[in-house]
Amino acid sequence: MRLCRFNDQRLGLVEGDDIIDVTAALDALPSYRYPLPSYDVLIANLPAVCSRIREMLASQTAAPRHRLPEVTLLSPVANPGKVVAAPVNYLKHLEEARADAAIHHQNQVGEIQRVGLFLKANSSVVGASAGVTLARPERRNDHEIELVAVIGKTGKHIAAADALDYVAGYCVGLDMTVRGPEERSLRKSPDGYTVLGPYLATADEIADVANLELSITVNGEVRQQANTRDLVLGVAELIAFASSFYTLHPGDVLMTGTPEGVSQVHAGDHMRASIAGLGTLAVDVR
Amino acid sequence: MRLCRFNDQRLGLVEGDDIIDVTAALDALPSYRYPLPSYDVLIANLPAVCSRIREMLASQTAAPRHRLPEVTLLSPVANPGKVVAAPVNYLKHLEEARADAAIHHQNQVGEIQRVGLFLKANSSVVGASAGVTLARPERRNDHEIELVAVIGKTGKHIAAADALDYVAGYCVGLDMTVRGPEERSLRKSPDGYTVLGPYLATADEIADVANLELSITVNGEVRQQANTRDLVLGVAELIAFASSFYTLHPGDVLMTGTPEGVSQVHAGDHMRASIAGLGTLAVDVR
Repeated sequence: MRLCRFNDQRLGLVEGDDIIDVTAALDALPSYRYPLPSYDVLIANLPAVCSRIREMLASQTAAPRHRLPEVTLLSPVANPGKVVAAPVNYLKHLEEARADAAIHHQNQVGEIQRVGLFLKANSSVVGASAGVTLARPERRNDHEIELVAVIGKTGKHIAAADALDYVAGYCVGLDMTVRGPEERSLRKSPDGYTVLGPYLATADEIADVANLELSITVNGEVRQQANTRDLVLGVAELIAFASSFYTLHPGDVLMTGTPEGVSQVHAGDHMRASIAGLGTLAVDVR
Repeated sequence: MRLCRFNDQRLGLVEGDDIIDVTAALDALPSYRYPLPSYDVLIANLPAVCSRIREMLASQTAAPRHRLPEVTLLSPVANPGKVVAAPVNYLKHLEEARADAAIHHQNQVGEIQRVGLFLKANSSVVGASAGVTLARPERRNDHEIELVAVIGKTGKHIAAADALDYVAGYCVGLDMTVRGPEERSLRKSPDGYTVLGPYLATADEIADVANLELSITVNGEVRQQANTRDLVLGVAELIAFASSFYTLHPGDVLMTGTPEGVSQVHAGDHMRASIAGLGTLAVDVR
């Protein structure tokens, strides 16, 4: 299934460019009192919600329909726990970053196995319709398209061979970045700098996550184009690596790194980030 | 007020070494449905809960009593949003870190204004009784005592002059650290590597947050001893700096940095981290 969150916290089933409103399926989720769960309760209960959606479709109680391009798209993960990101995970982007002083700012740019993973603030997560408001317009701000895996169940010290079982689904991600001397976890964390969407495709929808074409255009011009087969560490290896340091929880977001071609955006630009099978994230820069 | 969370998610009012069970005051908090609030609902509603506690005390319905050293202490913040930390914020610790290759591992150690702030995983947050289980026992693992400010209300671009109004309260923090080449946000984020407590002192309890003695002993030996007057950026300046990059929310945790004297701990060690007016965090290393 492809599920989106839209308009006033509605839940939608995406079929092509159509959205079927399945918000009533959220009745499968209980109410909570303090202390609240520290994970995303929709993602944690995705099988139950999907089952409810199938019942609704069978009984034809799902309604009404909307058009994907016409709704306000929210982040498919409402309550991300931690946002884990791979710094330089396509070999060509590593070469590019090392060659360009405007990108690395005298920080060392190392291989991912040495540099490890970084965190983005969960307060930076938005959906496509929020747009990206440049936080430091006087500096260089770059787009970075990334394949995103959303963790579906709790795990620690997960073996790479088992890791894909821990993925609830995938979506397109934009890891927006202010260039400068500060730590990545600050420069990549302004409000709106983590754009997720347009929807979450449950893991069963993606036949081979290690062979997905991805690309981003800015004002119609292709800036980044790659295939996830060129990831240095694939999704499974990233989950194994991350979970060797900390427990992963449902709703944790794993951004898998960006390929070569990162470039500057300016207010007024329009970005379109696409991954095969995961749709297109259409995002305005403000 | 000094409030702790203890045993099976109880709320306690701390008076000296006594705890009065005021869990019933949590009735002031509503129940929630998906999407859940992305902030800590106790911290966001602290005035209402404190008001309820005062009513309970006046009507003598608060009961029973416990002894602080005898309970299981949980993190005073149950649902931390983001954990923001200052990397090197006491001048003497900066000198120490630059001089010691075992600490900096060829990473550049810069001034805080240049390096900025980093993030710790919210899944790393525990209370004192959890103890610290070394995540990478083959490496050097260090204790870092820090004054912690817990954000009480939402704000962005907060002026330093107003910043202390955004603090709900303070506690002692241990920023545990695995040394190594990876980004701070990974090495400081294993489960249990952010210890908060023993309780939260509401901001009105602390007369001058810029003049608090702090110290940590390991097995009875003093390792770090300092005063918050020696912070490079004080609490107000850190809030201003952080909120110039991203919005702060109730329950966000601000770790203000550690003074000189960081040193290695081993399984079996016992740490006691104290800050004037904020009590002692007694933590076993496992």
